[in-house]
Amino acid sequence: MSVRIGVVGLNYWGPNLARNFDRLASCELAYCCDLDESVLDRHRASFPLSTFTTRLDDLLEDDTLDAVVIATPVPTHANLACKVLEAGKHVFVEKPLALTTADAVRVENLARERGLIAMVDHLLVYHPGLAAVKGMIDRGELGKDTYYLYGNRQNLGIVRADENALWSLGPHDISVMLWLVGERPSEVSATGESYLQPGVEDVVFGRIKFPSGIIGHLHLSWLDPHKMRKMTVIGSERMVVFDDMETERKVTVYDKGPIPRTETYGEYIQVRSGDIHIPKIPATEPLRLVCERFVSAVADRAPTPSDGAAGAVVVEVLEAMSESLADSGRPVTLSTGVSA
Amino acid sequence: MSVRIGVVGLNYWGPNLARNFDRLASCELAYCCDLDESVLDRHRASFPLSTFTTRLDDLLEDDTLDAVVIATPVPTHANLACKVLEAGKHVFVEKPLALTTADAVRVENLARERGLIAMVDHLLVYHPGLAAVKGMIDRGELGKDTYYLYGNRQNLGIVRADENALWSLGPHDISVMLWLVGERPSEVSATGESYLQPGVEDVVFGRIKFPSGIIGHLHLSWLDPHKMRKMTVIGSERMVVFDDMETERKVTVYDKGPIPRTETYGEYIQVRSGDIHIPKIPATEPLRLVCERFVSAVADRAPTPSDGAAGAVVVEVLEAMSESLADSGRPVTLSTGVSA
Amino acid sequence: MSVRIGVVGLNYWGPNLARNFDRLASCELAYCCDLDESVLDRHRASFPLSTFTTRLDDLLEDDTLDAVVIATPVPTHANLACKVLEAGKHVFVEKPLALTTADAVRVENLARERGLIAMVDHLLVYHPGLAAVKGMIDRGELGKDTYYLYGNRQNLGIVRADENALWSLGPHDISVMLWLVGERPSEVSATGESYLQPGVEDVVFGRIKFPSGIIGHLHLSWLDPHKMRKMTVIGSERMVVFDDMETERKVTVYDKGPIPRTETYGEYIQVRSGDIHIPKIPATEPLRLVCERFVSAVADRAPTPSDGAAGAVVVEVLEAMSESLADSGRPVTLSTGVSA
Amino acid sequence: MSVRIGVVGLNYWGPNLARNFDRLASCELAYCCDLDESVLDRHRASFPLSTFTTRLDDLLEDDTLDAVVIATPVPTHANLACKVLEAGKHVFVEKPLALTTADAVRVENLARERGLIAMVDHLLVYHPGLAAVKGMIDRGELGKDTYYLYGNRQNLGIVRADENALWSLGPHDISVMLWLVGERPSEVSATGESYLQPGVEDVVFGRIKFPSGIIGHLHLSWLDPHKMRKMTVIGSERMVVFDDMETERKVTVYDKGPIPRTETYGEYIQVRSGDIHIPKIPATEPLRLVCERFVSAVADRAPTPSDGAAGAVVVEVLEAMSESLADSGRPVTLSTGVSA
Repeated sequence: MSVRIGVVGLNYWGPNLARNFDRLASCELAYCCDLDESVLDRHRASFPLSTFTTRLDDLLEDDTLDAVVIATPVPTHANLACKVLEAGKHVFVEKPLALTTADAVRVENLARERGLIAMVDHLLVYHPGLAAVKGMIDRGELGKDTYYLYGNRQNLGIVRADENALWSLGPHDISVMLWLVGERPSEVSATGESYLQPGVEDVVFGRIKFPSGIIGHLHLSWLDPHKMRKMTVIGSERMVVFDDMETERKVTVYDKGPIPRTETYGEYIQVRSGDIHIPKIPATEPLRLVCERFVSAVADRAPTPSDGAAGAVVVEVLEAMSESLADSGRPVTLSTGVSA
Repeated sequence: MSVRIGVVGLNYWGPNLARNFDRLASCELAYCCDLDESVLDRHRASFPLSTFTTRLDDLLEDDTLDAVVIATPVPTHANLACKVLEAGKHVFVEKPLALTTADAVRVENLARERGLIAMVDHLLVYHPGLAAVKGMIDRGELGKDTYYLYGNRQNLGIVRADENALWSLGPHDISVMLWLVGERPSEVSATGESYLQPGVEDVVFGRIKFPSGIIGHLHLSWLDPHKMRKMTVIGSERMVVFDDMETERKVTVYDKGPIPRTETYGEYIQVRSGDIHIPKIPATEPLRLVCERFVSAVADRAPTPSDGAAGAVVVEVLEAMSESLADSGRPVTLSTGVSA
Repeated sequence: MSVRIGVVGLNYWGPNLARNFDRLASCELAYCCDLDESVLDRHRASFPLSTFTTRLDDLLEDDTLDAVVIATPVPTHANLACKVLEAGKHVFVEKPLALTTADAVRVENLARERGLIAMVDHLLVYHPGLAAVKGMIDRGELGKDTYYLYGNRQNLGIVRADENALWSLGPHDISVMLWLVGERPSEVSATGESYLQPGVEDVVFGRIKFPSGIIGHLHLSWLDPHKMRKMTVIGSERMVVFDDMETERKVTVYDKGPIPRTETYGEYIQVRSGDIHIPKIPATEPLRLVCERFVSAVADRAPTPSDGAAGAVVVEVLEAMSESLADSGRPVTLSTGVSA
Repeated sequence: MSVRIGVVGLNYWGPNLARNFDRLASCELAYCCDLDESVLDRHRASFPLSTFTTRLDDLLEDDTLDAVVIATPVPTHANLACKVLEAGKHVFVEKPLALTTADAVRVENLARERGLIAMVDHLLVYHPGLAAVKGMIDRGELGKDTYYLYGNRQNLGIVRADENALWSLGPHDISVMLWLVGERPSEVSATGESYLQPGVEDVVFGRIKFPSGIIGHLHLSWLDPHKMRKMTVIGSERMVVFDDMETERKVTVYDKGPIPRTETYGEYIQVRSGDIHIPKIPATEPLRLVCERFVSAVADRAPTPSDGAAGAVVVEVLEAMSESLADSGRPVTLSTGVSA
């Protein structure tokens, strides 16, 4: 039986989500909803079988609708998600889940109480390349210890007046790091600069400290003409680099091996590079995979790696980094909170 | 007339300096000096015309000797440099110049008072690739504004028990950043972790703030099996990457251009990538160039970009970053000091 | 006014052509035609406004239809193209235009006599990257002379029992070479081997000699797991490489410069590498561009670089190379024929 | 006991050989010989312990001299090598061994008769990266069958008036191919063009056919500003690329796997790329390794992969390719000769 879905917000990322849900055999794109008639008009031809409406209530009041996808501006995410859940429907929310931890936790709690799926579009945690990285970490292939990881998300993109590089680019790397490490962060900090528009950071360096001692480092920028989309994880035996700008070499694994050496003054531990391995990664689009996962979660209620709880911790990190950003990079301790 | 030089300390980097000075037509390698006879014995065959000695005084007392090269362990740099200057000879000191700003300033002042050359082996500021980068910045080819720059110095190298990644790797990138920006930094901070040996940071992230608003960011690590030696400078019109691991593509210039764009919600400034240009860079070794420069400075007393004053600011930054490192990354303000 | 088009043959490449013509504002996909009902059924949902039929005559008899696209198996190309032209309609033919020069010339002559457009899908001659290469050659930017060019088309693809690597992969590089050089070839040769299936060459090396002395060299293979799609042109002053496997660096230009040098025995001419330049190339899909060009040619009758005459010379080269292939690489002279 | 060696010919490559032999602990560089006093003078300082002479007889008459290295112009190789062997000394000859097969065979026969080592400086067969490739082939890791291999040796180098690209660049790739395949070639052909100097081919394409059906293809050029030094071997299961321009990635192995597939018209065999593996290769210089091997062969008379017989087959291939080059690429059959 097909899952019936409606998409709300068709101005920016929404049409991509609509198209992907529409293509899934197990899913029916029942509604396209946007406040702006002219935005709806742009997409009518693409989805001839869907109902187009400016009223969210048309969706909420339809008892045959299973789930709603929220792709509206970020400040509206949490309230719309709550409305959807209160109407007894599952919800898929564009990232970030909310602008405040309190709001994110509200969505998460509501989903848990009602026994409904709330899933955030952290699509990179569904990327086949990062799945390979996660598998290596979990099987201990990077070595007994994971030392640190760092993400590079740099390019010349769309610079928004109302969202800085941290909130715009950060959710990707933060969600990936939390998922790869599998721990709740204990402390974060961030510094940044606003070169193009006063008060809107266009380059941000962030740091996430995990209880085990693992560090995650972020480099986010809208100023670099050489596009980078990378996540590097360094363990005691191997390093793995995920590079989303590569077409055929998304994942590269570097071996190493410690070589003790003695020198005249001081003790040395020499380590050298070894073999390099580039596994074949399936080329499936992460956006397709995240949509499939939502549809199957609605059907079988299986947990997902980007559920409301995961989305709420990402918002917590973003909020704490913003606090640090405003205070010259002072470290901000995260609550041990019941939320995650 | 040939400049007569003696090299002190032949255990680690000294032989490379000795070899390079020995090859210069305008220079005579008069002495090789080390406290350890067995170290001297290893190099006698390579420099058959030089006098080998364990006594520094043999060099200092030789009135025909023009200059002394100090390649001994770091803690001895400042004292030995002062001894050399007090003996009326020019001095070339391996990096870093000293362990404390006070010591570095002492060397610098002594050289100034005596009218002698004190030069630090910040060899990257003599690299033809970085000279091309500096030229682009100075001619305004990166645009009206330089936004920020970042250095990556990561590899599996020799891990020392007595020197962390900041002091071991940092002098390279710090000296390059100070030279490229041409300003005295106003504030620095650093965070780091010690994975291999307690108390010795093997991965360090640093930040240098310049009065003009330019930010320099450092990523130093001994843990990464994929060797990186990069410096990236981002200006308002272009980005330039210096990559010392490339053999034929040391310098890459990326064009960009702002494209105004209007969207439904919010104002956007879109910027896109443009042409890429890879200028031909002469393949001359920086080590040879820094040695040539010292010999010519001794001959003509022309100022160098890595004189005592430059070396002292590098030590100031290292010292302030160490303070920040010990205090969870708290920013440390640099004095406006008379020293530089 | 919209150009009305029908696509014949939907089993392999046809659907891609149908989709691209369907998307063009100036074009209406009036018919989808295939002998096999089940093939038609696979595509009905994608083109809801088109008429689906197994009868080619439905298209030929429709006076409102402007043009027909032939994407059927290669042996049928020429006959179907002639039928279309005889019905007074323009024709777009998948590559190669025919299996024999005689057949190709028949299509070309018919189109000329009737004043109709016959265009072959040599889509690479519409590639923005190769347009940049062609521009450089035509403006003399590679130097006074073009020396030689070579194409690499290697990968693990679909190995067909009924078509060797020459006929399957060759039309791309041959059409590009003829277009870039702008001369009728005087002589060709080819050697090849059949490793996977007796009698079907899966690796072929070919050579095209042009009257000006320029040589084109082909390396075609189905056996190489590292996919290559490259065309390199070497001129007296510069070399340009078109690499279709690159996403952001499709075209790379290498400067050089002669440096006279005298040595003890013999005369030397030393030449060295210079700057490298990577121009920004628009990312438009060549398939979209070739379809646009056909539609506009139908509308304005402007000549195209892959007209029937161009398509016929490609077939002539393929036929002569086949002859050479069967005779251990013996060079085969091409007629100076009136056909091109 | 040390092997005593003399080097003859110090104008071009000889000094590199002299330096490498001089550095070996097991070898003593007893003589440096050249007809030109001024050439000798350039090198006296580098080898203070060697005897410098313009008389070859000084070497041949010295009963304590074990071996002679011939680095003179190519036309003199064979005669000088015979003189050395007739004087009862081992000989190491710069490549190619001779200008004609007859001369090469003369050297080879003389060495065999006298029980002396004759070794040719085909230094690539001692390259650690190609040793890894050879190991993979011999252990069957590229699959049951080796299909074909191809070499690229392209750059802007020294263009000689008296030697074309085939004779100057070809010995490297030909010696490697013969050694990798381990068969005597049955047929060769070559085509080429002379762009810079009439009658001296500066770009050559060659083809070597082996009895087992393996094909070797050569692309030799002095015209390409992008330097290439590559050897690619394609087997039924894997492809391996040796790229000597890479510093850390000399050898790359590409996996593949056949996937049967059925389509509507025709039978298909689809094959796709798999994992990529880049083994760590020791960084030892091949020139050092070839010198070590000669010295140890002199000491223990162990056979080498570049002995006189191997050197003679390389000359046979060069000679036959020259014949083909002069005859528009007509295939030339190689004798089954007793010589190898």
